[in-house]
Amino acid sequence: MNFSDRLAEKIILKKTPLCVGLDPRWESLPKSIRSKFADATPEAVAEAYLEFCSEVLDIVAPLVPVVKPQSAFFENCGPKGMEVLRKLLQHARSLGLITIMDNKRGDIASTATAYAEAVFGGQVGSHEYASWPADSMTVNPYLGFDAVEPFLKAARKVNGGIFLLVRTSNPGAKLFQDIESSGKPLYHHVAKSLAKWNEGHIGECGLGDAGAVVGATFPQEAAALRAEFPQIWFLVPGFGAQGGGLDEVRPSFREDGLGAIVNSSRGVTFPTSPDDPDWKSSIRKAALQSAQALGSLLKI
Amino acid sequence: MNFSDRLAEKIILKKTPLCVGLDPRWESLPKSIRSKFADATPEAVAEAYLEFCSEVLDIVAPLVPVVKPQSAFFENCGPKGMEVLRKLLQHARSLGLITIMDNKRGDIASTATAYAEAVFGGQVGSHEYASWPADSMTVNPYLGFDAVEPFLKAARKVNGGIFLLVRTSNPGAKLFQDIESSGKPLYHHVAKSLAKWNEGHIGECGLGDAGAVVGATFPQEAAALRAEFPQIWFLVPGFGAQGGGLDEVRPSFREDGLGAIVNSSRGVTFPTSPDDPDWKSSIRKAALQSAQALGSLLKI
Repeated sequence: MNFSDRLAEKIILKKTPLCVGLDPRWESLPKSIRSKFADATPEAVAEAYLEFCSEVLDIVAPLVPVVKPQSAFFENCGPKGMEVLRKLLQHARSLGLITIMDNKRGDIASTATAYAEAVFGGQVGSHEYASWPADSMTVNPYLGFDAVEPFLKAARKVNGGIFLLVRTSNPGAKLFQDIESSGKPLYHHVAKSLAKWNEGHIGECGLGDAGAVVGATFPQEAAALRAEFPQIWFLVPGFGAQGGGLDEVRPSFREDGLGAIVNSSRGVTFPTSPDDPDWKSSIRKAALQSAQALGSLLKI
Repeated sequence: MNFSDRLAEKIILKKTPLCVGLDPRWESLPKSIRSKFADATPEAVAEAYLEFCSEVLDIVAPLVPVVKPQSAFFENCGPKGMEVLRKLLQHARSLGLITIMDNKRGDIASTATAYAEAVFGGQVGSHEYASWPADSMTVNPYLGFDAVEPFLKAARKVNGGIFLLVRTSNPGAKLFQDIESSGKPLYHHVAKSLAKWNEGHIGECGLGDAGAVVGATFPQEAAALRAEFPQIWFLVPGFGAQGGGLDEVRPSFREDGLGAIVNSSRGVTFPTSPDDPDWKSSIRKAALQSAQALGSLLKI
């Protein structure tokens, strides 16, 4: 089954389009975990991330369809961090979760292929191998089609998908993404190309395997993109901690309630202070609450 | 001394603006190295990259000012690959080489900071740490100023620098980079912003610590950018294997011969076939040849 239909099926099964983001930060971890790694070397921090994020995965697996580890926070802990990231992706998959490797890669030719195969798998030496095995990854469009194509190719070989940056959620996104040409902003041109790259890869749910990152912080732009590109999945960051609420994410959904997955990181994984002795229950409660709130947008 | 002046000083000392790119590929490695890692697991491939690239660094260190490992090929070998990348960067620095971590990162807010500190160093747990310690790194501009700023900040704390993607060397670069607004292509708007971000950070050599990636495959565009932005360092990929020759890189230099570093990866590191028993001499010869050819562009 292609990525798009797998995603739709899992969203319908879990009755929510919530994606839980894993953006671990040492200073936000529960004190009961930090106290076990008191030396707090980069290796110890990585081990603490493994313990915390594994718990988070176990808690949210019955409640949500998708998880999205943010590569940067693991890269920050060196090689040990990357080993932990690999283990967490494997753990998420073993729990039946759909995974998005959020690493926003982008490069040309064989370099792009190497980045893509690090996620979707490929030949390394004499072995098939995927460094950070995931169902999908985020990709940066700046370098053009021949730089995005290797990601699409590697993804499609394993029924995976990509999410291309279209309209990011940061306040400064406009600087280049809003540069206007032929009456349309750059991000619109990117979305239009994306729609073309999706042709021939639309699933039974009516959406393609090449999705777009569209921030919740720009609901008007999201509404316009949604209207024009009904076959593109939106991955929507900016919900919760970054300021987007239900009203801000609503425009990213199609009439039938499909078409978007909404990410929440801090709001779900750090809902209380590090002192909370009952942090697991707090995470479960936060995940359930967000899952149900966003579930109300599904009309299936 | 700031990054820009360190770069200029090292180029003048070595009498060449050649940057050697480390883009290892298993199938291109000398057979004498591959035969030691016959099982060719991802870990073994990473070990082979370490042995090969360490030799390359030792060979080129007396001849060139700068080296640029390509992160993708190490990421492709998993956590062990990242450990090897870390060791190679440390080795390059111990040899006095200026290092560019070519990983084209780009993300927002605290995520960008995590990526930046993974290269330039920062607090991880209770320790100062840099996962992939380098003097500079490549950065993708798509997300805007608030996404580039954390890289500039982290770099400037340690007298490091960045190279922002402006005009990439791939044939398809035009798709978005040439989108025209107010009579100028997108990449020109990016370069203009970059010039602004350089203000107040111009070294004695007259160039700033925020450079631009400008492909040798687009010499006319490079000439126009050079004329308009005399204070921006250009990192020029596309020389050698990608088709650029001396005539193609010349427009990236200022009148005084400074202003650009030219990358060659395969041309220097894989000049002969994997069967070459004398591969070390072949690499030395190729490095020397490219260094001298490009050195002729310096007028100092």
